[in-house]
Amino acid sequence: METVSENACFGGTQGVYTHKSKACDCDMTFGLFLPEEAKWGAVPVLWYLSGLTCTHENAMTKAGAQQWAAEQGIALVFPDTSPRGEGVANDDAFDLGQGAGFYVNATQDPWAPHFRMWDYVTEELPVLIASNFAIDSARQAITGHSMGGHGALTIAMNIPDRFASVSAFSPIVNPTQSSWGRKQFGAYLGSDESQWSKHDATLLMNEKGFDGPILCDTGTSDQFLDLLMPESFAKACATRRQQSILRMQPGYDHSYFFVSSFMEEHIAFHAEALYAG
Amino acid sequence: METVSENACFGGTQGVYTHKSKACDCDMTFGLFLPEEAKWGAVPVLWYLSGLTCTHENAMTKAGAQQWAAEQGIALVFPDTSPRGEGVANDDAFDLGQGAGFYVNATQDPWAPHFRMWDYVTEELPVLIASNFAIDSARQAITGHSMGGHGALTIAMNIPDRFASVSAFSPIVNPTQSSWGRKQFGAYLGSDESQWSKHDATLLMNEKGFDGPILCDTGTSDQFLDLLMPESFAKACATRRQQSILRMQPGYDHSYFFVSSFMEEHIAFHAEALYAG
Repeated sequence: METVSENACFGGTQGVYTHKSKACDCDMTFGLFLPEEAKWGAVPVLWYLSGLTCTHENAMTKAGAQQWAAEQGIALVFPDTSPRGEGVANDDAFDLGQGAGFYVNATQDPWAPHFRMWDYVTEELPVLIASNFAIDSARQAITGHSMGGHGALTIAMNIPDRFASVSAFSPIVNPTQSSWGRKQFGAYLGSDESQWSKHDATLLMNEKGFDGPILCDTGTSDQFLDLLMPESFAKACATRRQQSILRMQPGYDHSYFFVSSFMEEHIAFHAEALYAG
Repeated sequence: METVSENACFGGTQGVYTHKSKACDCDMTFGLFLPEEAKWGAVPVLWYLSGLTCTHENAMTKAGAQQWAAEQGIALVFPDTSPRGEGVANDDAFDLGQGAGFYVNATQDPWAPHFRMWDYVTEELPVLIASNFAIDSARQAITGHSMGGHGALTIAMNIPDRFASVSAFSPIVNPTQSSWGRKQFGAYLGSDESQWSKHDATLLMNEKGFDGPILCDTGTSDQFLDLLMPESFAKACATRRQQSILRMQPGYDHSYFFVSSFMEEHIAFHAEALYAG
């Protein structure tokens, strides 16, 4: 693992690191914010999964999360959204290929050799950060934006007992029924739709739910509302009587101006769950 | 004036606008954050001047200022750092020409026709925003980063009674003695150094000072400390007995991770001055 940069930030350190990923078979870059408390012992960690077109950097510079993580004594991980580099397949569309991994393990060519973001985010990177930094793996929570909100919700529901809480900003919540999902799942996972269902938050909520609190915010002026389908997840949560807070925020859109506006509340929400355990 | 974008943000609106600038003789773009209070009446305004290579956008997306401005009911203006576009002179260096206006009126070719950032920021843009938005021109404050910290300090000292307070993040404070200053002043203002002195914060502090409070933060790990020369301004403030808080922040560098870490305190500082009047 190599250090790309480390900047003092709200009393802690915002680092960027690269490493050879076994899961993705290429170099991967991630951001990690450690609060000052990490100097003295292992701290809880909040995963932040980014959306389409993003790298590790977008949320790290625009979401305004570090200040609240510093206040709560929580680390933040900002993984990239796909494998990258020479020899890694890509597509001209912004919503397929590099920058659009959708947090799945691709089984179809040309994606299968590198696009294994599920394994990367759920197995390889957790071990890497716990081995190299003062991270308490027993206290994890997860959030994300858009495609990353989809990732956060599906990962949280598929791995019971790992995450104390899950939240999302304008998540894609019913990708098997949306053009943000059907296109990518078809390309990465193939035409057998039974392979898609573990990556659909609404189907997962119908089937198993989540063993902790859920918080989702979506803007009423989000330009992608028809692709996100918050109504599907809202119905599924209510039907299941899932512990959840699903908010439609008046006037807000899909941008980081929206994400940053509600970051304080999301991190406070996770802190409550992380420190209750 | 044309609206480029408007995003809901912390209960207010983050807008981006373009207009034909008379001062710079080209189209100029600026960001303006209006807190919710602007719906009901004119609000105080804090100017944020950016540093080398920046546009109106950097601080708008990375400084985390809107949340504190929203809390205090203060508008934020994010001007660009130079004229831009076809027909506007430029230089291959990152610290001269487009993105590096240094907040002066150039008198030398090829810069003189467009590089009139002093007039733009002190005359044209204040009138434009007061005419088009709910801005209370009687309550203004100013801040900035690096080259923009230089701009904030020099503008505040040159225009007595306009600004209730001035602050800066890692400002260039003695440009007549620094490679960040001598090169640009020579190019823009010519070799007669007497024309440079109104654009040097240390010289201005020696000569006249500021009729309000000053707050400056600079990181002890700032990679450009030798070019910023905080020691010159510190000596000048102390010699003058200027009301001032000059802080060296341990471990912080020149980045927006530094700026955002102290933004809350800067905006609280300005709010106290703006609401005391």
